Amino acid sequence: MEAVAQRIKHSELRNKVMTAEQAAEFVQNGMVVGISGFTGAGYPKALPTAIAERAKKFHANGQAFKISMLTGASTAPECDGVLAAADCVSFRSPFQSDPAMRNSINAGHTNYADMHLSHLEQQVRFGFYGEMDLAILEVTGITEDGKLIPSLAIGTNNEWLKAAKKVILEVNLAQHEKLEGMHDIFFDIGSPPNRVPLPMTRANERIGSPYLECDLNKIVGIVMTNSGDRNSKFADPDANSKRIAEQIIDFLAHEVKAGRLPKNLLPLQSGVGNVANAVLMGLQDSPFENLLGYTEVLQDGMLDLIISGKMTSASATALSFSPDALQRFYDHIDELRHKIILRPQETTNHPELIRRLGVIGMNAMIEADIYGNVNSTHVMGTRMMNGIGGSGDFTRNAFFSFFVSPSVAKDGAISCIVPMVSHHDHTEHDVMFVVTEQGMADLRGKCPRDRARLIINNCSHPDYRDMLKDYFDRAEKSGGGLHTPHLLNEALSWHQRFVETGDMRLK
Amino acid sequence: MEAVAQRIKHSELRNKVMTAEQAAEFVQNGMVVGISGFTGAGYPKALPTAIAERAKKFHANGQAFKISMLTGASTAPECDGVLAAADCVSFRSPFQSDPAMRNSINAGHTNYADMHLSHLEQQVRFGFYGEMDLAILEVTGITEDGKLIPSLAIGTNNEWLKAAKKVILEVNLAQHEKLEGMHDIFFDIGSPPNRVPLPMTRANERIGSPYLECDLNKIVGIVMTNSGDRNSKFADPDANSKRIAEQIIDFLAHEVKAGRLPKNLLPLQSGVGNVANAVLMGLQDSPFENLLGYTEVLQDGMLDLIISGKMTSASATALSFSPDALQRFYDHIDELRHKIILRPQETTNHPELIRRLGVIGMNAMIEADIYGNVNSTHVMGTRMMNGIGGSGDFTRNAFFSFFVSPSVAKDGAISCIVPMVSHHDHTEHDVMFVVTEQGMADLRGKCPRDRARLIINNCSHPDYRDMLKDYFDRAEKSGGGLHTPHLLNEALSWHQRFVETGDMRLK
Repeated sequence: MEAVAQRIKHSELRNKVMTAEQAAEFVQNGMVVGISGFTGAGYPKALPTAIAERAKKFHANGQAFKISMLTGASTAPECDGVLAAADCVSFRSPFQSDPAMRNSINAGHTNYADMHLSHLEQQVRFGFYGEMDLAILEVTGITEDGKLIPSLAIGTNNEWLKAAKKVILEVNLAQHEKLEGMHDIFFDIGSPPNRVPLPMTRANERIGSPYLECDLNKIVGIVMTNSGDRNSKFADPDANSKRIAEQIIDFLAHEVKAGRLPKNLLPLQSGVGNVANAVLMGLQDSPFENLLGYTEVLQDGMLDLIISGKMTSASATALSFSPDALQRFYDHIDELRHKIILRPQETTNHPELIRRLGVIGMNAMIEADIYGNVNSTHVMGTRMMNGIGGSGDFTRNAFFSFFVSPSVAKDGAISCIVPMVSHHDHTEHDVMFVVTEQGMADLRGKCPRDRARLIINNCSHPDYRDMLKDYFDRAEKSGGGLHTPHLLNEALSWHQRFVETGDMRLK
Repeated sequence: MEAVAQRIKHSELRNKVMTAEQAAEFVQNGMVVGISGFTGAGYPKALPTAIAERAKKFHANGQAFKISMLTGASTAPECDGVLAAADCVSFRSPFQSDPAMRNSINAGHTNYADMHLSHLEQQVRFGFYGEMDLAILEVTGITEDGKLIPSLAIGTNNEWLKAAKKVILEVNLAQHEKLEGMHDIFFDIGSPPNRVPLPMTRANERIGSPYLECDLNKIVGIVMTNSGDRNSKFADPDANSKRIAEQIIDFLAHEVKAGRLPKNLLPLQSGVGNVANAVLMGLQDSPFENLLGYTEVLQDGMLDLIISGKMTSASATALSFSPDALQRFYDHIDELRHKIILRPQETTNHPELIRRLGVIGMNAMIEADIYGNVNSTHVMGTRMMNGIGGSGDFTRNAFFSFFVSPSVAKDGAISCIVPMVSHHDHTEHDVMFVVTEQGMADLRGKCPRDRARLIINNCSHPDYRDMLKDYFDRAEKSGGGLHTPHLLNEALSWHQRFVETGDMRLK
């Protein structure tokens, strides 16, 4: 009880403490539920399991029990995973990465709307999706005056607290008390026609409050938890990742030398995953100093740049660390709490700010085609992987936008450079650089055929290069338009071949 | 000479007046030339022909003569047309619509980079494309202190004046002197890391200067012209266009009633073309008052809304009127010059402003697919039509984004709703509404399969509906992922069939 009083300083709210099972009783079939969580950080740890158990009981009695589930981004097995396994999520948005949820989506059990992360909060606020019945959010604690101290992610929490009719909080004792003060929530983002400029001109500027706010009458339950975040481990950068990182860093150094970039570059955004993380690790040995981060998810690579002093400070909406990095974060928290700012995803991903700050965006892709279109979401055109996340918000508005991937996957059976991507998430109009371990293609200001020659020659794997050249040659000679030559009946044949034979290569 | 003195009030600059042929001598093979013009307005009338003649002489002597040509957007036969016909444009960006230029692009003679219109100016300023050798701009006149009075379009002119090493002006006596004061040029848009918020919170707010500015030492020649703009006539709205307009207006009225839109809506953007123009004409008889326009090109429909008093004022980068509408504009110019604001395209199309103001975007499309992806640019996947223009700038950042098209083209031989678009300009993540004369599909917050059912049932033409249902049914049963069911070897078969048989319908 001492721990409860320590974390819930508002005395009346302490009366709302209950078990997860009790709190789950507030969840009814058909509800729209806003849940906290962003890239495996800051999601509720106890309630999703209790909801899943409740759903199973209903289902066992032949009763319907499904919810619509909106989050910041991806959560974890204890949240997306258990709910998908209980088959109680009828609708999911805007991003997920849990294997069970992915299977539920691809099996047609869960309807998934894959959205730009900067769009979701405002569209809920605009009333596009009706009312939100309930919000379930993890927090670190509650102040004496009832303000909420966020945990390792903010995501959409500020909006869910406003939109939801009822709120259930999970106060997680495992979240460090010194997180208090790291957050920066700008509440006045508003709706048209009454919007004003976002008052930020530097990536490390604070423009809001360190606390989330909520009508306390909406809080119907508080559940105490004591459990860490997902914290999956990163792979050590392999030779391919290192080669990709080197090329990006060489290019940036070249741009600094040419006077087109400041010596400390521009604020860096890095997508989620091992390759993107490797680029940041590569910057550790780069000539650049006083770097700034303006990203969505702050991972190990960026953390270590801050700890080493290479990076002055960083802004993000979530901290998603490996277990080792989380320990380093705690070891340096007195210093880091002043150098890391966590904001709502509507702010971190806002086109206005990304364009104004001139962010350098680096994102992973599933595949690119010879004309520079990028698929970030679909496997073989039909199966959802995770979602577009913030990659569109950053890519469209970035100063530079890089898409990175090894040139092949599945031991060479999949080429990540194809004649036509099987799904389009970023079009030829948005993609500036494609980088694989083979090389880099600078697509800026080039016509499609020049892009094709660059991508094929610089980025494709040697096993596929002649096949791509052959496709492009025959497309040029096929009698169609020479702006974007394609063979319409072959454009997606590589994917079809993989589906049929397990290999994109011709036998 | 009186007319010259009247329009060129700066006495020294009057000494720079020369013939178009003389001015064309400044143009050399290989030059990067920035030219004014946006949707058939404000392009140079004399110099392009003189440059084309010069190119022909070079070519006749076996000498190379080609330029890289950057504009605001499309120009006209006397500009894009004559230059393309002389085969002297090696590179073209960011938008065009002239038949000769289109042919040159699709024949592989002109390399065309199809860019978001908001991206071009800043990327030139960032130094992505090297130096600009020459700018050729039409203006209405020059003030005593050497400031330039723009004509019917601003487009990229402010940036070309800064970027170019030399400048040639065309002073067009046919442009109305009362255009002076209608323009609003915000110069401080800058480059990262030194950018600040754009100080605009209302669509009709002025934030800059009515004049373009230029280092006068860069002006190497001035050519006097007296010739009107392209001014192509609009088709009278047909039954299909009217039906599309009605549905959009009904939806907006519904949203006002539900309290999700202000009574005077939000600022309206309308793409170029007959259908988009018809929607604006439809608003004439709508219940909405005090409308605002925040668009790229102001066409007849929006002009008449202002003249009738339905619309309070409008912001655009170009005025592109039919001959009749141009006359109405001149008839009311004393009043209209205070109600219409012309700005640089970097401002009109800026994501920051479109999102802040909450613009309602309405754009034409070539085709949409069952999942809500839109092709705005390519005919049968390979041939460039015009370009993406500002449709991406508006769609991504709009409060509502509508894509409109009749459900079939070429007397029914082409379905504008297809299994998969043959080129992707706007992805499923950006497109909110698809509207044909058959009906409207509200795609917001829906999973791909729900979108498919809506688009097929509501928007497709009855001649194609069963074919689309059959494709979708078989795709669902094909064993691929059920997130976005596709038959990879059939997805583009409708386009291939059209290429082969001239008809998408099965015989």
